[in-house]
Amino acid sequence: MITKENISDYLKQLQDNICAAIESTDGAGVFKEDAWQHHSGGGGRTRVIAKGNIIEKGGVNFSAVTGKTSEALQKQLKITSELEFFATGVSIVMHPVNPHVPIIHMNVRYFELSDGTCWFGGGIDLTPHYVVKEQASWFHHQLKNTCDTHHPEFYEKFKIWADNYFYIPHRNETRGIGGIFYDYLKPDTVLSHTQSSFSKEQLFDFMKGVGETFAPTYTHLMKINGEKPFSEQEKEWQYIRRGRYAEFNLVWDRGTKFGLETNGRTESILMSLPPHAEWQYDYQTVPGSEESLTLSNLVKGIDWINQ
Amino acid sequence: MITKENISDYLKQLQDNICAAIESTDGAGVFKEDAWQHHSGGGGRTRVIAKGNIIEKGGVNFSAVTGKTSEALQKQLKITSELEFFATGVSIVMHPVNPHVPIIHMNVRYFELSDGTCWFGGGIDLTPHYVVKEQASWFHHQLKNTCDTHHPEFYEKFKIWADNYFYIPHRNETRGIGGIFYDYLKPDTVLSHTQSSFSKEQLFDFMKGVGETFAPTYTHLMKINGEKPFSEQEKEWQYIRRGRYAEFNLVWDRGTKFGLETNGRTESILMSLPPHAEWQYDYQTVPGSEESLTLSNLVKGIDWINQ
Repeated sequence: MITKENISDYLKQLQDNICAAIESTDGAGVFKEDAWQHHSGGGGRTRVIAKGNIIEKGGVNFSAVTGKTSEALQKQLKITSELEFFATGVSIVMHPVNPHVPIIHMNVRYFELSDGTCWFGGGIDLTPHYVVKEQASWFHHQLKNTCDTHHPEFYEKFKIWADNYFYIPHRNETRGIGGIFYDYLKPDTVLSHTQSSFSKEQLFDFMKGVGETFAPTYTHLMKINGEKPFSEQEKEWQYIRRGRYAEFNLVWDRGTKFGLETNGRTESILMSLPPHAEWQYDYQTVPGSEESLTLSNLVKGIDWINQ
Repeated sequence: MITKENISDYLKQLQDNICAAIESTDGAGVFKEDAWQHHSGGGGRTRVIAKGNIIEKGGVNFSAVTGKTSEALQKQLKITSELEFFATGVSIVMHPVNPHVPIIHMNVRYFELSDGTCWFGGGIDLTPHYVVKEQASWFHHQLKNTCDTHHPEFYEKFKIWADNYFYIPHRNETRGIGGIFYDYLKPDTVLSHTQSSFSKEQLFDFMKGVGETFAPTYTHLMKINGEKPFSEQEKEWQYIRRGRYAEFNLVWDRGTKFGLETNGRTESILMSLPPHAEWQYDYQTVPGSEESLTLSNLVKGIDWINQ
């Protein structure tokens, strides 16, 4: 039987492997670790990288926290009494120097309550400052390949979920080109997404699959884009897009909001924010420009597999 | 009897006067106007200034919007049925070039429902990147002078309200040095803050008092600080503080949240965001530095009058 320690031990190893892969590809940036304790029990290892060759600012965070469910959490989970919880996960956001390298986000997490229920959640999504169709399609193929190993419907369902989740209503834009997002995958329960049920081991394997898709996928995108020349105007566009990223995370991201409202570790939660961001009133792209083309791809429902 | 048209006409004039005062003091920046219609009725005049001598980015917005109360609004107002509403106000945020010039925010507003209830709200608060005690005290004296003309307890009560409102829980910091904040001042009702009641005319006079305190107060702070030399390191600290400003507005400010969640005009709502902001992981000030001294003043409950 898979225990919560098995999962958190695996996630620590995943954090180590991802940090090593990013450092090796970056060639200059080195992760610094802050180990911390959570006020209710457990803690984490926040690892941040800054001023690298390719990564301007990023974090790869591991946490394994225990505590009693707060009222807010009980409401969110639709449970009526206080229970003990255990939550572990790895969260990543990378903000690159070069506007031709996309921002990436990954999260894989596992949650367990003292009444015996447990579930997995997670996802990977990409936020290019400039959408390159071949790369967007390649990125989605990597996710689809991983998903297909576990269930033929995972990719399609979790791609739609990502489109809906990583969406900025007040801008009527998606945050980026999406990816996959999933939550509440409970072992031995018929999932509405697939009409199938999965053992805890199968869902843990899926978590591993997603986690291990991250490093080869993102380091590839770092390598093929990291040396591209860029103009001041392209850097400015990157700042504008980072502003939108900050808007999504601070206004709409449920995880960020929940963390900030429940006295989580602020610096670990907000490591997702960009190093520099910019807001200009009513910024408009030039029709026909690369920026305008990118905007036209920040919509839900694009089939990136059959491009 | 004061009508809603009297109030919105006054607020348009206030917008004109404030824009003229800022342009004249800035010496280079000029406001550009966007007139817009609201989807439910009415509209506004958004006026933005950018790349001035003193003001890097700012907005002075007038709006007068009508519509039917949404479910969200009914919940917020604790009313049980759909009513017509009328809301008018002037909102200002100024982000200066020079880190020695403070950020300022003002809002004065009037709200009316078709059941006959109406109320006034508003406030002015200051966010210096570097707190200068004499200036902070002078600023609060300007507000107190205005308040004292209307009621001897207004300043004290509305200063505490501002301390509580302009607070960033996840940073355990106030946004700046506060000022005054008030809401739900209903005519001919005993207000809990003062145990007195005020006529609609008296409350409209108070709105005018607050509105007319803005220009002389802020242009004075622009003039005495706008030419001060500043270092790159001071500019960086300004970017960090602007990041906190964005965090407050996007995560905690009720007006911003409400506007974004109810399909308000995004560009007018988010004109409050800084031109550039910066986030560094776990940024620490040097003990004893001016930055550190400023942080020690970003707490609730400082008596800025008796300094």
